[in-house]
Amino acid sequence: MKTFEYWFDFGSPASYLAWTQLPAIEAATGAQAVPRPMLLGGVFQATGNQSPATIESKGRYTFADFDRFARRYGVPLTRNPHFPINTLLLMRGATGVQRQQPERFGDYCRAIYQAIWVDARNLNDPAEVGAVLAVAGFDPQQLLALANEPATKEALKAATEEAVRRGVFGAPTFFVGEQMFWGQDRIDFVKEALQ
Amino acid sequence: MKTFEYWFDFGSPASYLAWTQLPAIEAATGAQAVPRPMLLGGVFQATGNQSPATIESKGRYTFADFDRFARRYGVPLTRNPHFPINTLLLMRGATGVQRQQPERFGDYCRAIYQAIWVDARNLNDPAEVGAVLAVAGFDPQQLLALANEPATKEALKAATEEAVRRGVFGAPTFFVGEQMFWGQDRIDFVKEALQ
Repeated sequence: MKTFEYWFDFGSPASYLAWTQLPAIEAATGAQAVPRPMLLGGVFQATGNQSPATIESKGRYTFADFDRFARRYGVPLTRNPHFPINTLLLMRGATGVQRQQPERFGDYCRAIYQAIWVDARNLNDPAEVGAVLAVAGFDPQQLLALANEPATKEALKAATEEAVRRGVFGAPTFFVGEQMFWGQDRIDFVKEALQ
Repeated sequence: MKTFEYWFDFGSPASYLAWTQLPAIEAATGAQAVPRPMLLGGVFQATGNQSPATIESKGRYTFADFDRFARRYGVPLTRNPHFPINTLLLMRGATGVQRQQPERFGDYCRAIYQAIWVDARNLNDPAEVGAVLAVAGFDPQQLLALANEPATKEALKAATEEAVRRGVFGAPTFFVGEQMFWGQDRIDFVKEALQ
């Protein structure tokens, strides 16, 4: 079975756009996506890279560019007024769910991505996170406990360090074997590498 | 006659790649490219943006990404060991030639782009620049004088300021009317906007 890695952080609109296209990549190539949660803030800190939003004109353009891709893909994308979202808890949650309830990992990602990039919810607010997770059928208290387990925290930290070690500096990043592709706008190259 | 603007700096490998594709864009759309020389260093200074090469892993990846596009386009691209090139004189030359010998502007661009991104010449060295221009049929002394005319210097400065005012933060940047597209990897969107 061919696979490709999809490294992501929920706070990145490009990660969201790429996530909407994973089924199409899988269908076109017969390869399976291996989602890899990482903390983009940690990647930025380790590499010295920064969000395009730190440069005013670049941030403005980047969102317009994402809008163009959203239209091309035919998927909804809303500018979240609470951007940037601190995703530490959300990524720890993803890490914990992936390890302990892998059958619910897709539901977790869908709930969080949709809350941020479609419904423009303020997921900086733990109460909002709890409400979103409850609607998606998760027990918020149980998930919070899972996110805060030392093993979960350590796993996310190790994954982020692995990403940096392998050359990741932004999100999303794809790997096909050791070939790296940065950005939701490199999906055609990912497909080519898989074919 | 439909037109589109192509803002560039010779020191940018992405500007070179986009330049190789201008004839294909023109052929596909019936629109004419309007080349706009600017000083990318000035754009970076004004916006706070930086070259991807300032982040080690991002710089490494970016060149690999350019190699992939060069293969896709079927054009040569060499990693210039003298990168980054200080392009102030080269861009002043482009500005002067475009204003005073517009019929030779294409030859000037071809000579400079090829010297940097195909032949890996060290165009930080004025003697090398002179040699490259002589082979392309220019009089190096005359061109140096043209580049150093106050009106030439002022025109490049004004163009760079115009670029920043209109939201440019990197190179190449295309405009179709006021729609802006950053990067040699947005050529398909440029074509769509022109059709």
